[in-house]
Amino acid sequence: MVDNRMAGAFYFNKIAIIGVGLIGGSLAMALRRKGLAGYITGVGRGLPNLEAAKRLGVIDSFTQDIGEGVKDADFILIAVPVLKIGEAVRKAAPHLKKGAIVTDVGSVKKAVIDETVPVVPEGVHFVPGHPIAGTEHSGVEAAFPDLFTGRKCILTPTEKTDRKALEIVKAVWEEAGSNVVVMDALAHDRILAAVSHLPHMIAYSLVNTVGDMEKAGVDALSYSAGGFKDFTRIASSSPEMWSDICAMNREAILKTIEDFQKRLEGLKRLIDKNEIAGLKKDFERAKNIRDSLVSKTGKLSEHK
Amino acid sequence: MVDNRMAGAFYFNKIAIIGVGLIGGSLAMALRRKGLAGYITGVGRGLPNLEAAKRLGVIDSFTQDIGEGVKDADFILIAVPVLKIGEAVRKAAPHLKKGAIVTDVGSVKKAVIDETVPVVPEGVHFVPGHPIAGTEHSGVEAAFPDLFTGRKCILTPTEKTDRKALEIVKAVWEEAGSNVVVMDALAHDRILAAVSHLPHMIAYSLVNTVGDMEKAGVDALSYSAGGFKDFTRIASSSPEMWSDICAMNREAILKTIEDFQKRLEGLKRLIDKNEIAGLKKDFERAKNIRDSLVSKTGKLSEHK
Repeated sequence: MVDNRMAGAFYFNKIAIIGVGLIGGSLAMALRRKGLAGYITGVGRGLPNLEAAKRLGVIDSFTQDIGEGVKDADFILIAVPVLKIGEAVRKAAPHLKKGAIVTDVGSVKKAVIDETVPVVPEGVHFVPGHPIAGTEHSGVEAAFPDLFTGRKCILTPTEKTDRKALEIVKAVWEEAGSNVVVMDALAHDRILAAVSHLPHMIAYSLVNTVGDMEKAGVDALSYSAGGFKDFTRIASSSPEMWSDICAMNREAILKTIEDFQKRLEGLKRLIDKNEIAGLKKDFERAKNIRDSLVSKTGKLSEHK
Repeated sequence: MVDNRMAGAFYFNKIAIIGVGLIGGSLAMALRRKGLAGYITGVGRGLPNLEAAKRLGVIDSFTQDIGEGVKDADFILIAVPVLKIGEAVRKAAPHLKKGAIVTDVGSVKKAVIDETVPVVPEGVHFVPGHPIAGTEHSGVEAAFPDLFTGRKCILTPTEKTDRKALEIVKAVWEEAGSNVVVMDALAHDRILAAVSHLPHMIAYSLVNTVGDMEKAGVDALSYSAGGFKDFTRIASSSPEMWSDICAMNREAILKTIEDFQKRLEGLKRLIDKNEIAGLKKDFERAKNIRDSLVSKTGKLSEHK
């Protein structure tokens, strides 16, 4: 077990970042700043982004060949879209050195584990992870080393995950400033379905509902104020990423949509029956919960 | 007809503001700044707020007696909660002078008209209105004269509304910087149900859904990021105000909830059947509509 608090930080001679975007780039910068990385190589498909990453000093070199990139690496961060994680690990597998630690940042964990664990070679350690961080921007030019400061990072080891590797990945995210929480993959997927995936499904549905009015000749959008804009900002998120997430976290998302549908139906019933006192009570409960958010997640999480 | 562009602005010797809060206070400040008000009196229930309004120069005097306040006033702005508008006009009615113009700022229009028009005395002109403006703050201390600058204001005259009075109220809001739109009360209520009331119903329901998880021992809220906070900010709105709005705009809200429910159910079906291409198409449509918002409502409406 590595205890970087007591015995000095871990140190990686070579790090490979697969997918040098906002998340991958920011972690590279955070580890570099702490002097915890000897050499960082980036792997990706788009040359302009890789060239920018090198120019910005985020990585020392880059390649489009995943095998070449992961060769001799001690630590491999898979920061590609969630649907591509399994494929990336499969391609890297034959080239991974014994003892290497592989981790990912996918926002769905059970499906990633199911795809990835079987293709990780004997002697290589895979630790599933998900830093709860991001901005509305993407690409390495948006990366910055404090992206993870004060943010939660969830690790979801399986029973077979190497404990030492888990401790090292935990230390990596702690060095990047995160508060690391270890939990079961299914618990992670249920929680993220509720606080992240469901709001996206709702925002997309709401915007399309108002879009239907526009189609029917009612220019409702012109009358939307700041509240509507804030509320629907997440409907501007990447359609590709979100359809992937739906595929990868299908059951938990379906369940949370159903829970929400029951709540909304209950509220509709109160409106229908003109039960103003019941409505007010429902709204008060929600307001209390929402108002508690700031104390629960702290000021630092205000970062978008 | 008053054409304040050509013949010089209208001028009111005495204005009465019933409800000197964010909206009422801001309009008083905007008209005072333009030199369009001789004397402004405020009517309210809470003495501390009225005293603050006088100290800040928003009003020249105040009273808790609505009859005393509206006496001799040329222009009366009813800026009380939507459920209290009818009552305020009823109390003011015996004291209103002939030729006085009364307008309101209620966020529901048909129900306000139904309650108010029958109690407006002969010779007094009532023009129903709704400025689409506000901040998360309330009370006169939050008021500022530019609150309405670049924002839409909807007026919903009935067939019987005096055309001259309508033109004057239009000029009032234009002088305050608003873009005035005239439309039918039911059209207003449908549009606001979709872009304002529905998002609030959704936000309250979403927060309560996540609250249910907390109750079941899953601390999901701790893992919410900036997106969830933005998305649920409106769930911190006043429960009293929103249960009132539900009562006042019952049918339009029920209809728009149903439209939204159909959209969400369709999305759920696509997830259930794993129809990723269909999902992506739905998300892309929403993204395009959302992205068009900035151009539709302009930069100035970004104000919260």
